[in-house]
Amino acid sequence: MKLAIVFGGSSYEHEISIVSAITLKSVIKSHKLEFIFIDNKRDFYLVDSKDMKSNYFSSKEYLKSAKKLSIVKGGFEAKGLLKAKSLDFDVALNLIHGRDGEDGKVTSLLEFFNIKYIGPRVEASILSFNKLYTKLLANSLGVKTIDYKLLSKDDSRDLDIEYPVIIKPLRLGSSIGVSIVKSADELEYALDVAFEFDNEVLIEPFIDGIKEYNLAGAHSKDWNLSIIEEPQKEEYLDFDKKYLDFARDERVSEANISDELKEKIKNSFKKIYKPLFNGAIIRCDFFVVDNEVYLNEINPIPGSLANYLFENFDNLLNIVATNLPTQKDIKIDYLYINSIQKAKGKA
Amino acid sequence: MKLAIVFGGSSYEHEISIVSAITLKSVIKSHKLEFIFIDNKRDFYLVDSKDMKSNYFSSKEYLKSAKKLSIVKGGFEAKGLLKAKSLDFDVALNLIHGRDGEDGKVTSLLEFFNIKYIGPRVEASILSFNKLYTKLLANSLGVKTIDYKLLSKDDSRDLDIEYPVIIKPLRLGSSIGVSIVKSADELEYALDVAFEFDNEVLIEPFIDGIKEYNLAGAHSKDWNLSIIEEPQKEEYLDFDKKYLDFARDERVSEANISDELKEKIKNSFKKIYKPLFNGAIIRCDFFVVDNEVYLNEINPIPGSLANYLFENFDNLLNIVATNLPTQKDIKIDYLYINSIQKAKGKA
Repeated sequence: MKLAIVFGGSSYEHEISIVSAITLKSVIKSHKLEFIFIDNKRDFYLVDSKDMKSNYFSSKEYLKSAKKLSIVKGGFEAKGLLKAKSLDFDVALNLIHGRDGEDGKVTSLLEFFNIKYIGPRVEASILSFNKLYTKLLANSLGVKTIDYKLLSKDDSRDLDIEYPVIIKPLRLGSSIGVSIVKSADELEYALDVAFEFDNEVLIEPFIDGIKEYNLAGAHSKDWNLSIIEEPQKEEYLDFDKKYLDFARDERVSEANISDELKEKIKNSFKKIYKPLFNGAIIRCDFFVVDNEVYLNEINPIPGSLANYLFENFDNLLNIVATNLPTQKDIKIDYLYINSIQKAKGKA
Repeated sequence: MKLAIVFGGSSYEHEISIVSAITLKSVIKSHKLEFIFIDNKRDFYLVDSKDMKSNYFSSKEYLKSAKKLSIVKGGFEAKGLLKAKSLDFDVALNLIHGRDGEDGKVTSLLEFFNIKYIGPRVEASILSFNKLYTKLLANSLGVKTIDYKLLSKDDSRDLDIEYPVIIKPLRLGSSIGVSIVKSADELEYALDVAFEFDNEVLIEPFIDGIKEYNLAGAHSKDWNLSIIEEPQKEEYLDFDKKYLDFARDERVSEANISDELKEKIKNSFKKIYKPLFNGAIIRCDFFVVDNEVYLNEINPIPGSLANYLFENFDNLLNIVATNLPTQKDIKIDYLYINSIQKAKGKA
């Protein structure tokens, strides 16, 4: 299969998307890869496989040597001397983390231009990108989440809360703008930081030493679930740590927990996934408190697609790519307009 | 102001979007208008104002005489003999009802290509296009909604429900695929109809003679709310009726209800609108039972933008267009990649 990996984007996570793409280049063995880079100006470039190194982007070398692409019906094309040349691939893979990739924008482009892709659909993007909507969704599906308070930029900061708390911008991943606040005198600064990235923030109780478990997977005909990992973390994963996380390519070992707890985590994953996330390989991060499973967050495009959690990642890509959701074909027959014209005596 | 009205789309409501655009042509007096038509193949066409008649589209005349457009950074352009000519306008107006327009797709295109537009943003689109998410949103904001049962195509149809009920495809507007079911023997057929349009349907109790009130508006600096209308309806608005609704251009009179109830309806509208729907002119349809207000649905792009409910529609467009939400400018400095390279001794 020929996969076109789309990465970059106008996103705070632009750089980790580059790292993610470079990682997948080394991980994916049995598929042919094309690399489509979206730069900070939202221009598309076709990057040669040999140029997939981080300094090719940080030095802006791509501006000189990568071919510019346009998105067109069914795919991408590069301007040729006489006529445009279209890029040859079977399926695109949305690997843009954060804005553009996970907020439904690039997804919408791919849908609108009728390009087959692996990745969350628009609804799935919005419901996972916004941490409040994730909670509403999970709760409606019978999956528990941590209590929260939503605060807008203009709201009073005179809050009645019990410390410690964790402050999160409503719409970012990768721990950007996230702070743990241990007492009231640290609150102001933490809110300032979070409001740098979003006009709304979530405040949640911070439970030190809480057990966290990650599970990735996809459903296409059958369930393809990864092993359950207990991520190694200190106080919590900060951006630098998570950043390195995006470059992971070595398999990890399964969390040492009871089969019963594994089953609970898997069931929660399945409730969240289907049918909303069809077509995507997602990773859900769960907390466990008193043997109860809580959804912490949904990563609809996890770092390097959480490849390190799967036995046979190439095969998973194949399964997902051959069972993608399709758009309904809507026939427009102008019956209504014709009937109105008839009524008016114009037909 | 020069407005570019974007209409059509690959949508079951394609035809009513055409009617909506034709209506706005006659309603909008003080702005210059351009008309951008998206046909069922999702090609863009620039339609001359004199051709804005329904049979220009139903006869496919536009294929011969309208200029084809491409969406490009900052706007739209038509191929010229020597170089592409860009379309001159200040703000686009998303007037595509249903799929493409209200599901975040065209919105995403406009955002991605950095085109200013009046209309719901992507999150607002998803939360109003999907009737279940509308309920979750409303309830989280303290606005009541009608009880429901969600049914998927593959679920058992052996339901324990009290008749009459109303069956609605989860994601369509304009009453398409909606049925009132009065007894168990009518259920099967009604579900078949609804599942023609969506893989998930909502089942709600049908309350005959329920009072319905519509309120439209926008918030930009201040609230700009319309009058409250009590729509005239028979059993319920069917598609043909609603279809005509999209062509409405005559002002209606205000519902004859107490000031207290008006205030309740306005407060519910405000809770729903802000900040999610900033940039859009929306219409909310409410039910009132025992003096309690329930949100029935949010129309993020109502038929002919509910112009008939406003005192000065041209002025409203002006206010909204000059107070649009903006995208955050994200600076990409490659600090992380540079620091990694430094650590590796490559910088």
